[in-house]
Amino acid sequence: MNKTVNVGLLGFGTVGGGTARILLEQEDLLSRRTGTSIRLAKICDKDIISDRGFSVPPGVLTQDLGDILDNPDIDIFVELIGGIEPARSFILQAIKNGKHVVTANKALLATHGYEIFKAAAGAGVEVAFEASVGGGIPVIKALKEGLVANRFHTIMGIMNGTANYILSEMTEKGKEFKEVLSQAQELGYAELDPTYDVEGIDTAHKLAIMATIAFGSPVSLDDVYTEGISRISPMDISFAKDLGYRIKLLAITREQPDGIELRVHPTMVPSDHLLAQVGGAYNAFYLIGDFAGKVLMYGLGAGQRPTGSAVAADVVDIARNIVHGAQRRVDPLGIPFDRLSPLKKAPMDNLSSRYYFRFSVLDRPGVLAKISGILGDQGISIASVVQEGRDRTGSVPIVMLTHEAMEKRVRAALDVIDRLDVVSDATMVIRMEDLHAIEGN
Amino acid sequence: MNKTVNVGLLGFGTVGGGTARILLEQEDLLSRRTGTSIRLAKICDKDIISDRGFSVPPGVLTQDLGDILDNPDIDIFVELIGGIEPARSFILQAIKNGKHVVTANKALLATHGYEIFKAAAGAGVEVAFEASVGGGIPVIKALKEGLVANRFHTIMGIMNGTANYILSEMTEKGKEFKEVLSQAQELGYAELDPTYDVEGIDTAHKLAIMATIAFGSPVSLDDVYTEGISRISPMDISFAKDLGYRIKLLAITREQPDGIELRVHPTMVPSDHLLAQVGGAYNAFYLIGDFAGKVLMYGLGAGQRPTGSAVAADVVDIARNIVHGAQRRVDPLGIPFDRLSPLKKAPMDNLSSRYYFRFSVLDRPGVLAKISGILGDQGISIASVVQEGRDRTGSVPIVMLTHEAMEKRVRAALDVIDRLDVVSDATMVIRMEDLHAIEGN
Repeated sequence: MNKTVNVGLLGFGTVGGGTARILLEQEDLLSRRTGTSIRLAKICDKDIISDRGFSVPPGVLTQDLGDILDNPDIDIFVELIGGIEPARSFILQAIKNGKHVVTANKALLATHGYEIFKAAAGAGVEVAFEASVGGGIPVIKALKEGLVANRFHTIMGIMNGTANYILSEMTEKGKEFKEVLSQAQELGYAELDPTYDVEGIDTAHKLAIMATIAFGSPVSLDDVYTEGISRISPMDISFAKDLGYRIKLLAITREQPDGIELRVHPTMVPSDHLLAQVGGAYNAFYLIGDFAGKVLMYGLGAGQRPTGSAVAADVVDIARNIVHGAQRRVDPLGIPFDRLSPLKKAPMDNLSSRYYFRFSVLDRPGVLAKISGILGDQGISIASVVQEGRDRTGSVPIVMLTHEAMEKRVRAALDVIDRLDVVSDATMVIRMEDLHAIEGN
Repeated sequence: MNKTVNVGLLGFGTVGGGTARILLEQEDLLSRRTGTSIRLAKICDKDIISDRGFSVPPGVLTQDLGDILDNPDIDIFVELIGGIEPARSFILQAIKNGKHVVTANKALLATHGYEIFKAAAGAGVEVAFEASVGGGIPVIKALKEGLVANRFHTIMGIMNGTANYILSEMTEKGKEFKEVLSQAQELGYAELDPTYDVEGIDTAHKLAIMATIAFGSPVSLDDVYTEGISRISPMDISFAKDLGYRIKLLAITREQPDGIELRVHPTMVPSDHLLAQVGGAYNAFYLIGDFAGKVLMYGLGAGQRPTGSAVAADVVDIARNIVHGAQRRVDPLGIPFDRLSPLKKAPMDNLSSRYYFRFSVLDRPGVLAKISGILGDQGISIASVVQEGRDRTGSVPIVMLTHEAMEKRVRAALDVIDRLDVVSDATMVIRMEDLHAIEGN
């Protein structure tokens, strides 16, 4: 049982550096715990990187990917360059060459996952991706193994640290979105192009991966209804606070009678709910199973050390399987690839929720009556209205909360309202989730 | 790969019922997810139980344990009768007969674990015990697998739902311990003999198991310093609130320069910390790794359905190993049995903490000076004092907070103080943990 398992790592950037570091620094610990020698044999990067703050044994660094993909000694290929191409081609090549794959590439899996998992099933190799969701939090393993005997009723969570950091700062300091974003970029918490993080796309990638496992149906990015946080204003946050809520970018998937609900959008969460307490760059996942009940997992969703921890856990899992001849002991998606069932999606139109609207209107007589009338025409019942301040020349906000209403009717009403002459900007819509009720189900 | 794995279950009580139910109700789901047929072949109980609210296939119920232990068709023995004997003997017999073992028996593992794990290592069978800690929360798997590449700096948590329920009710409703306990007993949240739960013993069992895995050294119940919550008064809770704290029964293990810290006691937790928000019968575990950082896992720590979920996950894990010929793919303790290192315990005397004292004193002049003097003699520095109310005939409380002080000196001072004529009752001591600082380490 004392086989050495050799790992080849592609991408020596932030996550690659964290992964190399944990595999090198904890080599003895892993050998003691597993009884197997797990060796970081090659690190490939197109740039020559001599110093990452820790020493790499001689002969490990290479600029030639063939040293990994065509090297028969390499058992596990770790892809950490991100993006769609060439990551996709490299992974498919590694699978073809009989290598197991570990990746943190949520964008790739959420768009080309089917192709990759199919190829891996055909070749009998593993594809592991704990690091693609929730950084250091072992949430994929919990879904596939720890909670394996549960039907999942709901999975929801705060899955993007950057967006959560921005919302938390806006909430605590009353600052504008743009101001906090620039500050986050300076601190390195947000990318120069923050679109994926702030527009909910990164969150949707992660939700697609989790829903695929939880419900055993292939879910891709396009299946997820996605809204970001860039239009949230300090006014929305302040109204939310007064109402006893916090605004969070929430990902939600639920099994409903009409199919699987899949959505990512800013959400008002009751302030006394644990998800409302998740601040800064932290992530939190709520997994609600029919036997386990609700299980929350919370931790650092990004960063080189937490992500390295997740990649290393996948490497160890595969190494243990190699040593015991138990490859694909757990299917990559938690269910044999040929048993996936087609996705039946619940139409977003059918969603029933309470809504927060912030209308931007000209301060003229009769505006409120007009808006209320249009909502009434769609059978949307108003729970409360706040109209503050007067501005005869510019635009003023009207905030309105609805009772439970259907998304389809809300959309129909807003289509009319946002075209009114007296409405000066697109209406801000935030869904209010009664999380305590969801959990009670 | 289509082998059937047969399970024999001993104990058809609360947890046994939940386990039988999940294995029967989710048989198809598990077969779809694992590609293996996992069959509940036998349920043994000394009582004839005909109805648990769900139907059991004919021929499954038995009163003869030989139908499981001596039955060559049974692959996995699930022990759910609890207690030390005869559970210990039955498990050892099952191991001798080459059966894998799944148990929820934390008391047995925390006292006779070494013997059981040694026997299992000798026989090459598995011993799985996810259900012994944290009910439906897959925290053992997170320690052994998801966070395998981490050195654990600290593990701490709220590990007993009954104690947490009682403290939460006392906090919310200002009620006395005894009143809430009786109410909890009526509701079935507390046992008729609540000693294990309220005196911290159950929590210490769980901490011993987790510390063994986290640090790779055998820890038993006797190694854990343990105090319970039965002496906490509404006054302590109310003082804690005013100071910005909540009182929780916390289990803490940390690797310190002088050894492994192992302690269970009522603890003041800052109100804004996530652990302070864990209410009712919920459990929460904080695992702090050197790469993953802090990971919190939260959920139902008891109950037949959550515990059944954990037992079933262990059964599935073992079934997958059986099918792939990969028995003991992960060692039961997360490290090969022969690589455990002897426990080096940090002496409790060396603990450094801030302290809350509630002295019960006669209302006489000079009492405060006397107490302060004794603390001063031990070099214990007082941060603040509250003396409220007067009662010339009875006893009055003096509440005192210290700066950082050593346990040894605190004990020495209290030994003197509690023997003073003017002190009418043993001093209530609650340690105040600066959790934000622990996590920063």
